[in-house]
Formats: sequence, structure tokens, C-alpha cells
Amino acid sequence: MRSQILVDMDGVLADVYSHFIALEYQETGIKLELQDLNGKLESEAFPSFHKHVNSKGFFRTTPLILDSIEGLKYLNDKYYVLIVSSATEFPSSLNDKRLWLGEHFPFISWKQMIFCGTKENIKGDIMIDDHDKNLSKFDGRKILFTQPHNVFVENTNYQRVANWKEVMSIL
Amino acid sequence: MRSQILVDMDGVLADVYSHFIALEYQETGIKLELQDLNGKLESEAFPSFHKHVNSKGFFRTTPLILDSIEGLKYLNDKYYVLIVSSATEFPSSLNDKRLWLGEHFPFISWKQMIFCGTKENIKGDIMIDDHDKNLSKFDGRKILFTQPHNVFVENTNYQRVANWKEVMSIL
Repeated sequence: MRSQILVDMDGVLADVYSHFIALEYQETGIKLELQDLNGKLESEAFPSFHKHVNSKGFFRTTPLILDSIEGLKYLNDKYYVLIVSSATEFPSSLNDKRLWLGEHFPFISWKQMIFCGTKENIKGDIMIDDHDKNLSKFDGRKILFTQPHNVFVENTNYQRVANWKEVMSIL
Repeated sequence: MRSQILVDMDGVLADVYSHFIALEYQETGIKLELQDLNGKLESEAFPSFHKHVNSKGFFRTTPLILDSIEGLKYLNDKYYVLIVSSATEFPSSLNDKRLWLGEHFPFISWKQMIFCGTKENIKGDIMIDDHDKNLSKFDGRKILFTQPHNVFVENTNYQRVANWKEVMSIL
């Protein structure tokens, strides 16, 4: 049986930072710079965080992380991939995320998608995630995908990757 | 730590049979009888199955299974409850199911909800489900909630319950 790999959406496939920055600029004229957001969770970094994540359409129009299509195809050929996304906190995000996955990753079946509140009850062999809170409770191999909020996370149990090229080089 | 119990939605909390029967009657004038549907999956029993499950609103307006509110409250006080629903096959069902749960079971947090394609990667100690395909791949204690489609399922690994009063009497 293939190894099972749990792949996060926001911050791994979906470039929520670019999306928040573009919307903040559009609405306020203020251009936030990625390096100023280091160490802050998205909810702390973006003043309009709650408004956006509760808006229908926000997660339907998020840009892709660089190389995520090529990277996920690579993983999907080699592993049993499950997309696991925290989504139930924001009810309107669910349909949006499902349709977004269908549009950009048509090679991923609906059978390979999980939308949850927390990830503690999801089994797998490998997890790729940008959030310490998800990796820290996972039993298998833990891969931390770099995003501004996690740059100060130091945990020798995690393998850190900066981008999808690095994911493909280690998996 | 409390035991973790995975509770299905359709056929356990949500009375999809009543909903399908009412809609079929409304649209065709034909009144299907539950006893004629024994042994057929919902997709076989209801001619308009695919139309309805792909319609926005269908899962938002499903009636409740008798005593499901009282029963889930009982479980939620005693166990760590996770609602686990197959939903990603029908994109528009996701928001509907999330809002339906929030309306009828406000004591269940968004952290306790999982919407998936298959349930094979969801961990727990006990599963209550009306589908053999979900119980058969589950590691823990398996409780089969009777619905017309499963009346001929005979599996000594399952405990069968006919209603929520029986759930409460055994858990």
C-alpha cells in the first residue's frame, strides 16, 4: 500500500498571504510587506482577517502557491494524497474550497478531500502543513512548509521546506 | 481522556429518507413507502437522488431523525463527539451541512465537524453509521444505525440500533 500523505491547503497549496495583502491594499491603500509579518499568525497580521475569511468568495479566488500544481501531481503519482483543510470554523469557506480544489487540481478526486475543524483525528504517514498546531499533534513524519507566521518555529521533529521544489526533492 | 465517537449525519442525525420521499411526492405525486425501499441504496431508491443531492438547499432543510438532538447531547456530555459526514462528492452540500449542524446542534463546536470523501482516515474509538462501507473499514467499535438500505446487512462485528433511544441505552 502506498504511504498516505496529508497535504494542507492554506499556506501550502493556496497563497493566502498574497490574497490578504492584495485585498488590504485594495481596501486601505496600505501595502503590507511579507517580511514585516514574520512570527505573526494571519489573524494578527491582517486587520481584515475575520471579514475576509467569513466572506463568500475569498477562498474561491485565492492564488496558487508557486509550483503547487506540479508538486501535488508529483505526490499524487507516488503517494496516496489526502487534502486536509481546516475549514469548518468559516461555514462559507467550505463550498469555496471544494470548488477551488476542483478547478486547480482536477486530478484530485473528491474522495481525497477532508474539511475539518482540527486535524487530530486524521490518520496518515506524512503531513505537510504550515501550522505548528497541526504538526505537533500528528504521529507520522512532519514537514513544515515555510510561511511568515512560522519562521521562528524551531522543532527538530519537523523537516522544514521553503517551497514545492524542496517538497519534491525530499519526497 | 474521553473515548472518541464518530457520528454520521445522513441517516443518523438527518432524516434524508423522509426528505427524499416528501420531495418525490411533491414533484411526481408518487408516494414511496419506506418498506418498499429495503435493501436499496438511496441512489437506487430515489429516482431524483442525483438532482437533489446536487441542489443547494437540500441538505440545509433535511428533517431531523427522531430524538437525535437529545441523543447527541447525551453523547456529547459523555464522549468526545466528532460529526463525520461524507460530503465532498456534492460540493454544494458542504455549506448546507455546516449550517444545518449549527442550527440544530449548537452545542457541537466547529472543531467537532469533519466533512470528507471517505471515512477511512478518520480515527476514533466508536463509530455510529448507517453505511456498511464506512463501518467495515473502521478499527473501533461499530454501531449500525438501521435505515432501509441496510436492513439486510448481517455482520456480527456490528451492534445494530434502530433509533436514538437504543443508542443511549448502549452507550
